Amino acid sequence: MFEIVKRDGRARLGRLRTPHGDVETPCFMPVGTKASVKTVLPEELKAMGYRMILCNAYHLRVRPGDETVRRLGGLHRFMGWDGAILTDSGGYQIFSLLKTRTIKPEGVEFLSHVDGRPLFFTPEDVVDIQARLGSDLIMPLDYPVELPAAPAQTRAALDITLDWLGRSVRKWRQAPAGALFAIIQGGLSKELRKESVERSLVHDLPGAAVGGLSLGESKAELLEVLDYTSAMLPEAKPRYAMGIGTPSDLARAVAMGVDLFDCILPTRYGRTGWAFTSEGVVKIRNRRFAEDGGPLDPRCACRCCRGFSRAYLRHCFNVREILGPALLTHHNLSHYAGVMRRAREAIAAGRLAALVGGADAL
Amino acid sequence: MFEIVKRDGRARLGRLRTPHGDVETPCFMPVGTKASVKTVLPEELKAMGYRMILCNAYHLRVRPGDETVRRLGGLHRFMGWDGAILTDSGGYQIFSLLKTRTIKPEGVEFLSHVDGRPLFFTPEDVVDIQARLGSDLIMPLDYPVELPAAPAQTRAALDITLDWLGRSVRKWRQAPAGALFAIIQGGLSKELRKESVERSLVHDLPGAAVGGLSLGESKAELLEVLDYTSAMLPEAKPRYAMGIGTPSDLARAVAMGVDLFDCILPTRYGRTGWAFTSEGVVKIRNRRFAEDGGPLDPRCACRCCRGFSRAYLRHCFNVREILGPALLTHHNLSHYAGVMRRAREAIAAGRLAALVGGADAL
Repeated sequence: MFEIVKRDGRARLGRLRTPHGDVETPCFMPVGTKASVKTVLPEELKAMGYRMILCNAYHLRVRPGDETVRRLGGLHRFMGWDGAILTDSGGYQIFSLLKTRTIKPEGVEFLSHVDGRPLFFTPEDVVDIQARLGSDLIMPLDYPVELPAAPAQTRAALDITLDWLGRSVRKWRQAPAGALFAIIQGGLSKELRKESVERSLVHDLPGAAVGGLSLGESKAELLEVLDYTSAMLPEAKPRYAMGIGTPSDLARAVAMGVDLFDCILPTRYGRTGWAFTSEGVVKIRNRRFAEDGGPLDPRCACRCCRGFSRAYLRHCFNVREILGPALLTHHNLSHYAGVMRRAREAIAAGRLAALVGGADAL
Repeated sequence: MFEIVKRDGRARLGRLRTPHGDVETPCFMPVGTKASVKTVLPEELKAMGYRMILCNAYHLRVRPGDETVRRLGGLHRFMGWDGAILTDSGGYQIFSLLKTRTIKPEGVEFLSHVDGRPLFFTPEDVVDIQARLGSDLIMPLDYPVELPAAPAQTRAALDITLDWLGRSVRKWRQAPAGALFAIIQGGLSKELRKESVERSLVHDLPGAAVGGLSLGESKAELLEVLDYTSAMLPEAKPRYAMGIGTPSDLARAVAMGVDLFDCILPTRYGRTGWAFTSEGVVKIRNRRFAEDGGPLDPRCACRCCRGFSRAYLRHCFNVREILGPALLTHHNLSHYAGVMRRAREAIAAGRLAALVGGADAL
């Protein structure tokens, strides 16, 4: 399923085979939580070079419902995306975004973020939901904790995560639909991360994800945890850093041997008027762009930078025209695709260190 | 500037020459009030077959400012649209949408709809604004009245409109940038409409628009006024019905010899979940589409209908994903482009009557 084509230090150039095509790694996945990468059409994602995106099992369970998606031919057909799809389980949403939830021996009870109706998820349910969606890569229900967390809380959450992983694996082995990954938890504790890795690896799953990051820790802490955790993961399998990061984070994580990424930054920043450019972050609402006839990023050839000026983009944000957020999102995703392409090319050429050395300018 | 290629009854197949390319008529102009056709890129409009769009001088004066647009190379370059642009003057906005305004001998005083700052427009200003924008077709400041209106009010508004037209023409003749049209007012009064036509025609302008419709009158009244007013307009020049209408309205107006149209319906309806289809209006939020895997319009080949199901479109509206409004807008504009194409083909074949006979199904 995963083949390493070339190495450069700890970094790897790889090929991930999925039922919906091969994906070159390192790879960034645009976030399409509710079966839509906000403002962007599937054909545009493809044109940018994306071959895999991320959706969210919890959100799709709530609306339109995984049974509905299944009856309509699965998630790929539903959203018009014929590339690969990784679905996140919803653990992050349930434990980090919802204020109240109750953990019972069977699973987790919580209230829908949409209408407050009570929901109950077991690890087995979450595997089933993703099987019904037809996801290519499947994430088990996990329990990430907000950082900083008390050691006892991190410990308890890890135990639950590991217990649920075992149950997810048993359920999944009965009918392995997509490729199930383990999710490594353990907060900022090296010991707990190590234990999480060791007790997850016994299941010999197709890949492993480092979870529980971008949850309140500092950038240095994030990179440190990612560094020592990914170093403990098996060489031959894909490694996924969940919810990360800025372009420079991506380059640094690639150098640590991470293969897969997802993050809301390019899409969310795009909608709020922040653009990642070769000249740093551009806040397009700034008054100084009012009569700037130049492109958002002079070194970018995306549809936004080819066709529109900073002045026009600023105007669209000013008068609340959707084209503004849509064009900045398009640019940001193009920029991320470009960063990942450069990372892959750098690994192929054995020159990743140079890219990482200049990561702050990515 | 305007050439009639073929006639079918009162209908005409024509070619309008503009500094930004030829436009085949009858022609519908998508509305891009603030220099953006909401959710749609210029390249998409072109792919649908559009060659002319409408923007609004008043809105662009307020934000980003006509001087800013001029310094940035004009409106076409600003918004990335290399086809033709007609700008409306803002008379409709000032008189029909704003609650307070004061007419003075020089012009009209009112408060900005954005920040309440006082603004003052003279007819000369409005010609200047459109010259700065670089519009291909220019509309004079006019005074439309909401219907029904007292005869004295309609009379007074017409006198002001005619006075302003004279001043607009004098200003415009000094440096005729785009093609200035007269706007015919006169409410529902045949007599006043006739007077408006006669006193406007003395200026021998490149074209004439029928204004003051879609302002509270019934559909029958609208079509009646349009019918007798357009019949009085010169044969050899383009006729423009402002702010009209549904697909069936368009077909009927084409049969009356109207050449140009604009309307917010396809874009606004698209954003609110209403689609014009070959099977009538589809309200996509309806529960019965929840598991409907078919296209929005089985007889449409647009990007929306080719790529997405009714169930997916409904889902996008349900979870407030922008792709929903964007795809429905795309479809509606494609549908309108198709209706106009069919009207032009019907005139060319001498079969417009058949199209108009089935107009309710358009």
